[in-house]
Amino acid sequence: MTSPALLAVDWGTSSLRGALLDTTGAVLQAREFPLGILAVAPGEFEHVFNTCFGDWMQTPRLRCLISGMAGSRQGWQEAPYCPCPAGFAELGPHLLWLQPGRIALVPGLSSIDAGHTPDVMRGEEVQIFGALQITGRDTAILVLPGTHSKWAQVQCGRVTRFETFMTGEVFALLSQHSILAKTLDLKGEFDHAAFVQGIDHSQQTGSLLHHLFAVRTLGLMEHLSSQALPSFLSGLLIGEELRSQRQTVQNGPVIVIGSSVLTMRYTLALEHLHIDCEALDAQATWTGLWALARSLDAA
Amino acid sequence: MTSPALLAVDWGTSSLRGALLDTTGAVLQAREFPLGILAVAPGEFEHVFNTCFGDWMQTPRLRCLISGMAGSRQGWQEAPYCPCPAGFAELGPHLLWLQPGRIALVPGLSSIDAGHTPDVMRGEEVQIFGALQITGRDTAILVLPGTHSKWAQVQCGRVTRFETFMTGEVFALLSQHSILAKTLDLKGEFDHAAFVQGIDHSQQTGSLLHHLFAVRTLGLMEHLSSQALPSFLSGLLIGEELRSQRQTVQNGPVIVIGSSVLTMRYTLALEHLHIDCEALDAQATWTGLWALARSLDAA
Repeated sequence: MTSPALLAVDWGTSSLRGALLDTTGAVLQAREFPLGILAVAPGEFEHVFNTCFGDWMQTPRLRCLISGMAGSRQGWQEAPYCPCPAGFAELGPHLLWLQPGRIALVPGLSSIDAGHTPDVMRGEEVQIFGALQITGRDTAILVLPGTHSKWAQVQCGRVTRFETFMTGEVFALLSQHSILAKTLDLKGEFDHAAFVQGIDHSQQTGSLLHHLFAVRTLGLMEHLSSQALPSFLSGLLIGEELRSQRQTVQNGPVIVIGSSVLTMRYTLALEHLHIDCEALDAQATWTGLWALARSLDAA
Repeated sequence: MTSPALLAVDWGTSSLRGALLDTTGAVLQAREFPLGILAVAPGEFEHVFNTCFGDWMQTPRLRCLISGMAGSRQGWQEAPYCPCPAGFAELGPHLLWLQPGRIALVPGLSSIDAGHTPDVMRGEEVQIFGALQITGRDTAILVLPGTHSKWAQVQCGRVTRFETFMTGEVFALLSQHSILAKTLDLKGEFDHAAFVQGIDHSQQTGSLLHHLFAVRTLGLMEHLSSQALPSFLSGLLIGEELRSQRQTVQNGPVIVIGSSVLTMRYTLALEHLHIDCEALDAQATWTGLWALARSLDAA
């Protein structure tokens, strides 16, 4: 076996994942635990880390980089956000070393939007750098769909700005807790036609707060079946997100990074709106952490 | 005591209210029961009605008009929506008589929005007609804030079109079930400055799905206290609703009908955006049902 060069750790809200990478960035071994930061008591992070990865850390001079919510106020220790524009040159000095030269928390990024409002990400920045590595680009527009979707603009290897959209969370709230929940059949298959109808619906003028009510009336009037309504709602929300990005995305392909379920939907929506895109289904986190570690050696 | 001329009933989702009105529309007696349609088993509506109002119905020739969700599919009997434009002349023939000449369900209204999507209301139409009566207008723009806010345009006594906004429900979902709930102190007092900041924030370009995340980051960065955040969120959502109505409202005062808590917020928001408005805190439902009953006699 090639000797391990990096322990890459993704410590999120609900899970803890780690991978041992060799000098080329290839995964030698990987582990996953249901030990997200919400499941770890304050003061117990080092103990949990040692229990999960202590054996791997026996390797002399093995370095460990940890990204995700472990670096938040509720995590192991707070690694203050690194302000945009930020690339490896800016991220390196912002690493929070828990054991000098050995274990570091990767900070998230902060950005200021057009309306002077702060925005933040934690964990996604590593996926973005991984995606750049994988696609061989240093300038790109990227979207990371999820509970809180992130849209990032990268120029010359640095994230210049980004915006968060609560799309996934609003979908979950509406489909599980709202009046709409009663008429939505969440066990239905993905309905392509209803999804596209939702995208088209979202491109109209007017407010999302009004458009959402169409989910109710189209069901009530039996224009859409309860099996089709979740796909319509999904198209409506993803379409609303894309509508506000049309200015941004006209210049180039959008790289979509995420789970296959979500990248499929975003790719469909982007293509329907004639926006160039390319989906990346690869494990961008490990590649991102590996590239970051390499940049430290080069510095 | 003046002899009663009408039993006006407002049978909603969560409560059942009735008032005995004299020939001038004045309330002689009123009752309220926690017997909304969700609390009544199918087939039991007549029994519940008789138990609550049977004594009043002993009055010879007393007529009863029932508005609200009792006329929905889940209610006493389904009174099909009356399509807009609709005034008393259209509503009269659409009444669903449960006992001919004695007890009728008032149907809701349906409308088609600019994007050809159906919209519906049930119960609010009676408040709108009551508000016209009280203000002495036959042409107006009205907003009924609530779980599902309704914006209606009235010309010559007829509702020509209306739109529903899920503003109140989205506020409840986000403040109770979302990630934002953790940082919102809902027991805080109404914060005028934070509310206005939310309104201003909502008038920016971009999507509500992004603007909502400001509630998180402004809290995280300690720009707003957890006590101020609910008011900011409220301003953000009400502002988003108003933003999409600016075209509509430029022609005249907006009549705001609803609970004092909500009319206060909408009045504040409208005034902040320099939109003429007038709040109506009166019991518009009884007046609306009384005016509808009078129109039947006149017809």
